[in-house]
Amino acid sequence: MIDPGTTLASLRANKPLVHNLTNYVVMNETANAILALGALPVMAHAREEVEEMVGLAGALVLNIGTLDAPWVESMLLAGRAAGERGVPIVLDPVGAGATRYRTETAKRLLDELDVTVLRGNAGEVATLVGVEAEVRGVESIDAGADAAELAREAARALGVVASVTGAVDHVSDGERVAAVANGHPLLASVTGTGCMSTAITGCFVAAREGAWEAATEALVAFGVAGEDAAAAARGPGSFHAGLYDALAALSADDLTARAEVDVR
Amino acid sequence: MIDPGTTLASLRANKPLVHNLTNYVVMNETANAILALGALPVMAHAREEVEEMVGLAGALVLNIGTLDAPWVESMLLAGRAAGERGVPIVLDPVGAGATRYRTETAKRLLDELDVTVLRGNAGEVATLVGVEAEVRGVESIDAGADAAELAREAARALGVVASVTGAVDHVSDGERVAAVANGHPLLASVTGTGCMSTAITGCFVAAREGAWEAATEALVAFGVAGEDAAAAARGPGSFHAGLYDALAALSADDLTARAEVDVR
Amino acid sequence: MIDPGTTLASLRANKPLVHNLTNYVVMNETANAILALGALPVMAHAREEVEEMVGLAGALVLNIGTLDAPWVESMLLAGRAAGERGVPIVLDPVGAGATRYRTETAKRLLDELDVTVLRGNAGEVATLVGVEAEVRGVESIDAGADAAELAREAARALGVVASVTGAVDHVSDGERVAAVANGHPLLASVTGTGCMSTAITGCFVAAREGAWEAATEALVAFGVAGEDAAAAARGPGSFHAGLYDALAALSADDLTARAEVDVR
Repeated sequence: MIDPGTTLASLRANKPLVHNLTNYVVMNETANAILALGALPVMAHAREEVEEMVGLAGALVLNIGTLDAPWVESMLLAGRAAGERGVPIVLDPVGAGATRYRTETAKRLLDELDVTVLRGNAGEVATLVGVEAEVRGVESIDAGADAAELAREAARALGVVASVTGAVDHVSDGERVAAVANGHPLLASVTGTGCMSTAITGCFVAAREGAWEAATEALVAFGVAGEDAAAAARGPGSFHAGLYDALAALSADDLTARAEVDVR
Repeated sequence: MIDPGTTLASLRANKPLVHNLTNYVVMNETANAILALGALPVMAHAREEVEEMVGLAGALVLNIGTLDAPWVESMLLAGRAAGERGVPIVLDPVGAGATRYRTETAKRLLDELDVTVLRGNAGEVATLVGVEAEVRGVESIDAGADAAELAREAARALGVVASVTGAVDHVSDGERVAAVANGHPLLASVTGTGCMSTAITGCFVAAREGAWEAATEALVAFGVAGEDAAAAARGPGSFHAGLYDALAALSADDLTARAEVDVR
Repeated sequence: MIDPGTTLASLRANKPLVHNLTNYVVMNETANAILALGALPVMAHAREEVEEMVGLAGALVLNIGTLDAPWVESMLLAGRAAGERGVPIVLDPVGAGATRYRTETAKRLLDELDVTVLRGNAGEVATLVGVEAEVRGVESIDAGADAAELAREAARALGVVASVTGAVDHVSDGERVAAVANGHPLLASVTGTGCMSTAITGCFVAAREGAWEAATEALVAFGVAGEDAAAAARGPGSFHAGLYDALAALSADDLTARAEVDVR
């Protein structure tokens, strides 16, 4: 059952630790999003400690936005340790499709690790399932596919819950597809909001069983926060600051009622 | 012709990708400035991908604010690839003059790469043309030279468009010097605003021919945004958030009319 | 004498350079906090330059929040150079207790360097003096000790001024303990506020003699800024932006009068 309010209340009560190996651009932003929501973030990338740190965590978030060789090695170490300990992994394949290195690294992480949720934009996810797509830098320009079908196909082909975000988000476990209409266009005006949605997905998979439900609920929560932040914003800067206010102010009581989710 | 409004309209229509190898302190801030203005940022530094990524870009921004050996190597790789493909390079020599490593790295990048625009403060630029200057950390204390002449001299000596920012900015191609009076003192109260001006210079050189005109227009646009943000600010924090609002709200229609540029 | 107003006025007049080797998550935030307060930040971590850079600085801030082997090596190089030149060192042992690597690195830095002030939360400091503590990621859950006694014990055992922050902060030189009640609960809702308090401690130790007094004054100043920012905040995002406004607006004239310090 998709019930983001109940999961949010549980998350705030239990404060799971979410271990992130993420990109330099959004480290502060994703840490603050996790903290504002009510969970505990930690950023740790050294090979000397990632296996131990992930053992303390309720979820592992891997994000290749500013990848290089030592970070990829640490992601593999952390991911294997997560797999051994049953810690769910959320992967954000930032910029897959833009360069071979990003595409191959995302595929390698999917191959070698037991990824629970793949959270990307349509261009990135399309690249990873072999559909033609245009990716410019880290922006998805044209997915070249119906997003709901893309999510379903990615989930089946890659053995993950596929969470494809866009104007409407689509989350699939290979059978069901949840279309999430919450959100606001201003989210696209701030860098790293995709990465934040990945981090928040990590919070939700740490807070409940059922990765498809959790990934869907995470996008509802982030989308509702985006709607609330937009109401008071004068542009991307004030929206960005307001987004943390809105995440912290999310009401577990009415979050489920505000969910705009269509399951097919 | 210096016409920042027309260039801004073109930039927003074409959304050039600006590839940044920049410092850790300002990665989020420069990405958000580029996005708020209307272009697309990407941060990528791995030697495995910088040459491929810069091939997708309209400009390459190199910023040595938190340099180390692997990053310098990647800057050289990216810069050579940019040169081969005619992608303009904007260099920000953060802290040149503060340590030998910064000074020598900035000189090496200028020597080995075809830098289009050098954007720095007076102390940094003076250091690179051999004029006595006082640099404390990454702050220019005393340029020890008339800024307009410094810009002209740097442009001639280094074979670049020299963009020397300060209370009044000076941009020279070795012949002409544009003095840009747009801006606000609050810009000096937020870290990374110099780096943002470099990133926005990257957007403008990606959007039009004529590096001297583009570099001048970039400083007009950033200065006008600073003026607008200052009007609503209560201090450096609210100014910082407001700066992205102001960049996004810049009107292409009246930007040229608001330019305070004196060409000598 | 604890007189934060006088020290702040001196700091703003002399603008000491504070050299930081800190974590990726908070680089922008700590640089902006230092700048808003009135000092000059520099972030530099390359082994090629840290010894030269610290020679220009009034204080060195070491923060292990996203440590790895090259950074630890650079911290040791910078710290030894600081010791030789009499530059005070402030250490933030982020996450000590969470992983062996963090605990051992913090101990190594304390052993090999002449650390002036150790600024951490109760869990981290307890770990470093061998008291049982629970640390989850980088959050202190339960210090397992009276905080004032913990600060005194840490100061004696480690030969530092121990600055243990929490709902009430405790700063000890091994004899005296200053309890600082300034601050606001919203400080715990933004990531990196602990790191900011460390950076501001660096500013104060650079601005006056007497590390115990300086460390105490720093927490007063940061706490008062937190109180002022909270008055206008709607949540963690607006509080975060407002914190820089408040640091910049701190009045040297009434800061000492607003100090809530109890010395035992």
